[in-house]
Amino acid sequence: MSRADRYLRACKKESVDCTPVWIMRQAGRYLEEYRAVRTKHSFIDVCKTPELAVEITLQPVRRFELDAAIIFADILLPLEKMGIDFEFTKDDGPRINNTVRARADVEKIRAINPMEEMAYLMDAIRMVKRELNGKVPLIGFSGAPFTLASYITEGGGSRNYQYTKAMMYQEPATWHLLMEKLTDMVIVYLNDQIKAGVQAVQVFDSWVGCLSQADYREFVLPHQKRLMASLDSSAPHVHFAFNASHLLRLIQEAGGDVIGLDWRIEIDAAWKALNYEGGVQGNLDPVALYGSREYIKRRVQEILDKAENRNGHIFNLGHGILPTAPIDNVKYMIDIVHELSARK
Amino acid sequence: MSRADRYLRACKKESVDCTPVWIMRQAGRYLEEYRAVRTKHSFIDVCKTPELAVEITLQPVRRFELDAAIIFADILLPLEKMGIDFEFTKDDGPRINNTVRARADVEKIRAINPMEEMAYLMDAIRMVKRELNGKVPLIGFSGAPFTLASYITEGGGSRNYQYTKAMMYQEPATWHLLMEKLTDMVIVYLNDQIKAGVQAVQVFDSWVGCLSQADYREFVLPHQKRLMASLDSSAPHVHFAFNASHLLRLIQEAGGDVIGLDWRIEIDAAWKALNYEGGVQGNLDPVALYGSREYIKRRVQEILDKAENRNGHIFNLGHGILPTAPIDNVKYMIDIVHELSARK
Repeated sequence: MSRADRYLRACKKESVDCTPVWIMRQAGRYLEEYRAVRTKHSFIDVCKTPELAVEITLQPVRRFELDAAIIFADILLPLEKMGIDFEFTKDDGPRINNTVRARADVEKIRAINPMEEMAYLMDAIRMVKRELNGKVPLIGFSGAPFTLASYITEGGGSRNYQYTKAMMYQEPATWHLLMEKLTDMVIVYLNDQIKAGVQAVQVFDSWVGCLSQADYREFVLPHQKRLMASLDSSAPHVHFAFNASHLLRLIQEAGGDVIGLDWRIEIDAAWKALNYEGGVQGNLDPVALYGSREYIKRRVQEILDKAENRNGHIFNLGHGILPTAPIDNVKYMIDIVHELSARK
Repeated sequence: MSRADRYLRACKKESVDCTPVWIMRQAGRYLEEYRAVRTKHSFIDVCKTPELAVEITLQPVRRFELDAAIIFADILLPLEKMGIDFEFTKDDGPRINNTVRARADVEKIRAINPMEEMAYLMDAIRMVKRELNGKVPLIGFSGAPFTLASYITEGGGSRNYQYTKAMMYQEPATWHLLMEKLTDMVIVYLNDQIKAGVQAVQVFDSWVGCLSQADYREFVLPHQKRLMASLDSSAPHVHFAFNASHLLRLIQEAGGDVIGLDWRIEIDAAWKALNYEGGVQGNLDPVALYGSREYIKRRVQEILDKAENRNGHIFNLGHGILPTAPIDNVKYMIDIVHELSARK
């Protein structure tokens, strides 16, 4: 068995020779070869130029024994064609210039045809597939409707999600219309990525952890459920909600072949709470990579011990890798995951 | 029964006529009378001028039927005399100018005598007590050692707690020395506040939710346990950790007569997980105050239903009130908590 198979087999809870590992944001600033590309090209240019997106997608897979590649893109890209005007600031943080807060704003949001309107991404997917040539699987992804909704109502990242929640609490019909439109988009966006060749899709609900269980159930769950049920079943679906331990069972209820876990939950307790239905992905704290080798090894071993070499565990960080992560420790972590999890 | 008794009786799980309510950051920017004081005085001047701190402490208690006052102060104040140089930026965010990251930095941190070196706070406590004249109890507070440690290692607020965790993971002995010194300080600081007259103390561990259970157990629990056990038992102890649902039972293990809950956990499940030992405080999402009256009432009713009018529930928001919270809704919430929870 090789890098060609482990990740996809684990997504289906099939046996593997060792636990597959990949890293959220593995194509990113912690790599000098990424920074080299970025000295010449803006973030958005890299996203929209297939040759550059392909190069950056492949960089971490060349350097490390990663068991999956993930197409280089940003979760905000599809919003552009929906009529949302955004830009990336110097530190790559998103800023939305026409925030969506009133009914009329929501009504203006357009449906899109990603296969045509985001041909740059579909081309990049096809090109990466040719380059990988079956040796490493390719993951596609999208932001979840809630996370996209929160970006466009807040105007960027947020601490309190005041405008997002205010819309939910004051104008629930407007909120649900926004979520419906975003859900429609994510469905076609991910299904088009699958048509273009990605072999698994991950839905990132990065900010949904700001909600109480009651709010998730009322304002997110119906939409997220429809989304997960509408995805092409030929590719496994990974559902990752950050900082959302308290929503774990609702995330599962929404759907997903694999549930992503951050480091705020113990993987054994989480998998048990999920009744061992489906796989789990995670869950090392990204900051652990700044620790001593001894610390990293200890934490990796603990996660593997808790996962008990069950079929269906995909090793990952509990959130995106940080731009200053020490590269030697990244390699060390990837290699010891394979080594310590080798099935006898 | 009146505002004089409800809060303290609830802390001790004694019967009350209705559920007591107060609001974290109730003395703050959402009040026009607070903003009026602040046009003339800086944040730090208000903290250090007893007459002003007293006025601001009393403002919300005059305006609303709140069941407790909390002394106006900032969790960073005691750090000044320990040798930490900090300031409050224009938006009142803290910035530390001499971050503590190496062993030598930690060794330089001094012990303090709050009764003398923070006489301004002790004077304010005594003056508020005279003004309140037994009609409303007064709460004292401190940041928890972890939260203070993270401020001084990061240099302010943080997203990833990279320096804090790096110290823990690379130099555990340095980390533990820092936590010991901060724990020593918090013990004497809170006990001095009790001596000066506060009738309950709350420990705010605002940022500890960034830790995994394993990290909390190893790097925080021993210190937090020593802290909680060393506080004068004549005043009830409230232990509030934000965004830390995943640490709930460890927070209880550390100690506290009352455990504070944010909105990320359902109050019935939380109290049950705590075996109904001690009281619970919370847990309305602060952003709920931006909702319609109908929404606010529904959420308040849900929390009260889940708390089942058990002795030991103190109503509060799950985090500090936001500076733009609509004041009419604040009053509405306080009043319906009392109304909807009135014991038959």
